[in-house]
Amino acid sequence: MVKKVLITVGALLTLFPAMAFAEAPSNAMLNTGLNSLWVMIAAVLVILMQGGFILLESGSTRMKNAGHVAGKTIFTFGLGSLIYWAIGYGFAFGGSGNLFIGLGDFFYNPGIVYGENDGLSPAIFFVFQLAFATISLSIAWGGFAERAKLSSYLIFTLIYVGLIYPIVAHWIWGGGWLAEDGAQDFAGSTVVHLSGAMAALAATILLKPRIGKFNKDGSANQILGHNQVFTALSVLLLWVGWFGFNAGSTIAVGDGLFGFVAFNTQLGAGAGAVAAMLISWIVLGKSDITAMLNGALAGLVAITASCAFVNPWAAVVIGLVAGVLVFFSQRFFEKKKIDDPIFALSVHGAAGVWGTLANGLFATPELVETVGVGRPGLFYGGGWGQLWVQFESVVVCGAFVFIVSFIVLSIVKMVTGFRVSEEQEIIGLDLSEHGAYGYPEQMKKGQQDLNA
Amino acid sequence: MVKKVLITVGALLTLFPAMAFAEAPSNAMLNTGLNSLWVMIAAVLVILMQGGFILLESGSTRMKNAGHVAGKTIFTFGLGSLIYWAIGYGFAFGGSGNLFIGLGDFFYNPGIVYGENDGLSPAIFFVFQLAFATISLSIAWGGFAERAKLSSYLIFTLIYVGLIYPIVAHWIWGGGWLAEDGAQDFAGSTVVHLSGAMAALAATILLKPRIGKFNKDGSANQILGHNQVFTALSVLLLWVGWFGFNAGSTIAVGDGLFGFVAFNTQLGAGAGAVAAMLISWIVLGKSDITAMLNGALAGLVAITASCAFVNPWAAVVIGLVAGVLVFFSQRFFEKKKIDDPIFALSVHGAAGVWGTLANGLFATPELVETVGVGRPGLFYGGGWGQLWVQFESVVVCGAFVFIVSFIVLSIVKMVTGFRVSEEQEIIGLDLSEHGAYGYPEQMKKGQQDLNA
Amino acid sequence: MVKKVLITVGALLTLFPAMAFAEAPSNAMLNTGLNSLWVMIAAVLVILMQGGFILLESGSTRMKNAGHVAGKTIFTFGLGSLIYWAIGYGFAFGGSGNLFIGLGDFFYNPGIVYGENDGLSPAIFFVFQLAFATISLSIAWGGFAERAKLSSYLIFTLIYVGLIYPIVAHWIWGGGWLAEDGAQDFAGSTVVHLSGAMAALAATILLKPRIGKFNKDGSANQILGHNQVFTALSVLLLWVGWFGFNAGSTIAVGDGLFGFVAFNTQLGAGAGAVAAMLISWIVLGKSDITAMLNGALAGLVAITASCAFVNPWAAVVIGLVAGVLVFFSQRFFEKKKIDDPIFALSVHGAAGVWGTLANGLFATPELVETVGVGRPGLFYGGGWGQLWVQFESVVVCGAFVFIVSFIVLSIVKMVTGFRVSEEQEIIGLDLSEHGAYGYPEQMKKGQQDLNA
Repeated sequence: MVKKVLITVGALLTLFPAMAFAEAPSNAMLNTGLNSLWVMIAAVLVILMQGGFILLESGSTRMKNAGHVAGKTIFTFGLGSLIYWAIGYGFAFGGSGNLFIGLGDFFYNPGIVYGENDGLSPAIFFVFQLAFATISLSIAWGGFAERAKLSSYLIFTLIYVGLIYPIVAHWIWGGGWLAEDGAQDFAGSTVVHLSGAMAALAATILLKPRIGKFNKDGSANQILGHNQVFTALSVLLLWVGWFGFNAGSTIAVGDGLFGFVAFNTQLGAGAGAVAAMLISWIVLGKSDITAMLNGALAGLVAITASCAFVNPWAAVVIGLVAGVLVFFSQRFFEKKKIDDPIFALSVHGAAGVWGTLANGLFATPELVETVGVGRPGLFYGGGWGQLWVQFESVVVCGAFVFIVSFIVLSIVKMVTGFRVSEEQEIIGLDLSEHGAYGYPEQMKKGQQDLNA
Repeated sequence: MVKKVLITVGALLTLFPAMAFAEAPSNAMLNTGLNSLWVMIAAVLVILMQGGFILLESGSTRMKNAGHVAGKTIFTFGLGSLIYWAIGYGFAFGGSGNLFIGLGDFFYNPGIVYGENDGLSPAIFFVFQLAFATISLSIAWGGFAERAKLSSYLIFTLIYVGLIYPIVAHWIWGGGWLAEDGAQDFAGSTVVHLSGAMAALAATILLKPRIGKFNKDGSANQILGHNQVFTALSVLLLWVGWFGFNAGSTIAVGDGLFGFVAFNTQLGAGAGAVAAMLISWIVLGKSDITAMLNGALAGLVAITASCAFVNPWAAVVIGLVAGVLVFFSQRFFEKKKIDDPIFALSVHGAAGVWGTLANGLFATPELVETVGVGRPGLFYGGGWGQLWVQFESVVVCGAFVFIVSFIVLSIVKMVTGFRVSEEQEIIGLDLSEHGAYGYPEQMKKGQQDLNA
Repeated sequence: MVKKVLITVGALLTLFPAMAFAEAPSNAMLNTGLNSLWVMIAAVLVILMQGGFILLESGSTRMKNAGHVAGKTIFTFGLGSLIYWAIGYGFAFGGSGNLFIGLGDFFYNPGIVYGENDGLSPAIFFVFQLAFATISLSIAWGGFAERAKLSSYLIFTLIYVGLIYPIVAHWIWGGGWLAEDGAQDFAGSTVVHLSGAMAALAATILLKPRIGKFNKDGSANQILGHNQVFTALSVLLLWVGWFGFNAGSTIAVGDGLFGFVAFNTQLGAGAGAVAAMLISWIVLGKSDITAMLNGALAGLVAITASCAFVNPWAAVVIGLVAGVLVFFSQRFFEKKKIDDPIFALSVHGAAGVWGTLANGLFATPELVETVGVGRPGLFYGGGWGQLWVQFESVVVCGAFVFIVSFIVLSIVKMVTGFRVSEEQEIIGLDLSEHGAYGYPEQMKKGQQDLNA
């Protein structure tokens, strides 16, 4: 905000009270400012990932549901922000908690400005964490797609962002019992991705598959998403945002670890895309676009836990394995007759588990010392110890989120109903839940075709 | 640019003249650099909002106009940049002006580098301000949509970005008479949003409603936008860009006010989305996607003036009220038979007014002191004084933009014509103004359907 | 990553080892951190441009190829990242090379952290350079569009990002012979854009025009792209990313040159859009959307070489010329029966040449001294010397890329085949190369229409 004084080049300083230090700021203040600026940008990049999810989810589903799928992301992001502010942040990072849950800082007020030795703006730290919580929520929606009632989105947002996610975040990042054990999950392969996938699993089991997904003989039909330009663009937006997600999790510019993390992230993502594309070409005889896009995402998900703990060559290996894994994981869930429209279980679940476990194999002594969490991996002389901790964190966090989500959604199912009626599902959620098509002109034409 | 010396790790410094300080930079220089970097990023984020407007406007209108609606944004952004450089910036911030208008710095040349005590790069300050001016312009296009001639866009860009907007910006941000009065509009609920909405109002009144919008008995028809994935994504892109818009308006990293502003912005936006979604559910029996998207935007617009002046709880209240207000405002304008295809009057107008007035209620003494503009609000012991100033700035700025825009566009209407012919409107502006459909394959199919 | 200690406001510093300097960092360290942060963000912005290319390419082509066109960008971006890491970066910037090629740093490991006097994070410098290499690759795809086999994308990615591009980058940016000559190409009008365009030219000549592009009498048919909302949004995303591309090429915050570069970039882009729009209006009688979008891009491409060497008024002139040039260049290539679906030859080729040459005319003594490369231009008393160097670099780099690409793709053509069969081209590459439509619902409807 510019005020009271006309601008002349070279005199801008006098215009902005917030900028006008009485004297030049100290090195500690500049360091706090530099860190805060980086995490601010990282938070914005993570929020941009919601745009990726809007495109990924709507592109992976059908035209009759597109407005609903895209629009509900804005709504749940907004509601998630309020509930995270009210209670979620306090359960994750509140200062008076214990090893199981944080307490304090409800209806959080971060203060206007920071002190020079704070090292980071508390307000920005909050926005960054909020962005993570709501990304995890958007992953969970993969299990709801194309058949859950709008009201269930509302209720689950409150429970997931207000309670379930914060507890897991507290365990690993907020000083909880897994942090005590030295669990390594740098940017959230487990906290964010596996948690989201487990909530999606609970939802998709309770909802049952979409009409037409499986035949009576148990074979599966492909229900193709309606727009691969959207899904390809979504992967790029998520890839871009992931630099904030991973490299921002250093929470500091410091002496440059954030650059190394970005470097590894790029390699992991690239390797995932390449591996998935090749494996689909080999297995199917055609290079499947969806498989390849999921491979890039799986590479990103997997490298998320390990980006600050492993060498570049290991980042490539982790990405390659993730790309292959996600391809077979999709087929596995389809065989098990679990309907996973946005591939959340494979992309965020299977790859999230792999990425977390990979630390137990590849974490180097040097990087473990730099980050200051846990021990080196099996291939670096650390023995089985860290692998066990990683395994433990995957199992416990995965089970916790699945069970609580299953209970919550079962109650939703009993009390308000969870799935729309068969008729509503067939006409699509744009009409049934919102009263208008998201693509009114194209759907009308489509109906003309059907009527013709 | 890398030159003349091969890179070796640890010797990068020697390669880049721009980077090679003879000695380590001073704290004042680092502070200027840090502020400049933040405002650079903020400017880029605000420019990204043009992408939001491309999607918002095209998604909210019909397929036959999509290429026109999307493409004209690039053109007017480009033209607006040139005219703002030539004269607009000088009228807003030129150093030899008076309380009504700035003078100087026409065909602006910001100099190559800054001095260590500048506090901010003048070149970057210019780009940031240019981004604001052209966002306000894009808001104004809401009133032109689906029926204005292309030539009118060209002419109005020159007048609005060259003259109208800069004068309002000067009044409040450039040391003009409202700045003297202590008007609080931190990032432009009035300067940017209300101004754009008032220009849209002038346009839509002069153009009259689109064919088919109102029936002879006065009742309104819904003319649905063709793509809600676009509109949902647009809201997310705007939301992301708004962090640059609001938090960047600190124009400094300083001691962290920018983080607090981002925090409030997130809460205001979330509250707007939630409130609009619930009110539409209650009133209509269905949760309307468009209403909800507009609620998020209204929350953002409203918190824009007040983000640096109010406490977090007040940010939530401001967003909630904005979300409800925008819903009823849409209905009000429709009843008044004012056709507002992109909802500019409600989202940017009504919410812009509310956000500006809210400062007169909620501004806290502590934040007023931090920012250094005006007085506390009514609820914080400031009495009616600040509310009056806020009211005054809304009325005067709104009236000024409306009247001048109305006069300018009336002249356009007389001289070159403002609205396309009825036939052109029916076939769509893609064909009439540009000679080809934006969706050639889909429109051809549509026509086949019609011919069938 | 947050660990082991509960967060309290004001104590964040203690949580993050990467952030916890034993004492406040030195000015040199803060400077290195500030530069690293800027280049990190710039790299992310350049990567975002891949999203621009996804939309530009798919929007400029037909629905039957949309999934292929969009999806292959993710794949080639991923594969390009791996090959650039393995060998490309070493050929461009490896420390043991000569004037023709760099050697060293293969399978690059940048180290975890930087030293305080490094001036920039090597890891981030790598990611930034990788982003450039893969952008150049995406430009080359313009010549492949709608008829090249998927396997050719795979092979050409390896050769282009692994070898061809790095050699040109080495010549001009990595200490090669053109750097020795003082060639001025600040952010890559030649290195990135012209190189990509020359590869596209080799491809499109070898592939021959798309079926239906030219009639037997030599006249051309318009094959309209299917979605102008995508192309308009693509231009905006590219524009946004270009701030990282150009202003990031300062590789430092330093004393503010990056702001001046951003300023010039905005003017060049705006001028390109305006000029192309007006020239199309004058020549065609209609303002063509595609021409105007290409004008904005041509302005950006042209100002890329010169953004740090010329005054603002010259940036406007360079953009205006580029906008006119690209319009006539498109017509020229069409007359020559060269099929250029994404306009790569005109936008990145012709404008890239113009932008590079423009330095030889407009480079000012003051800016040449600031950047430290080459001599002033013809209009600033520098004589013909710099213009000759610029001409030389355009011709040699252009010829090198064209010839090597032509040879490589000729071998591809002989060994694996380069173009899909006529039948495959007609049904579209979504089906032929990937087995499913990118728009399955809309294409099915289209087919119903055809069958009807």
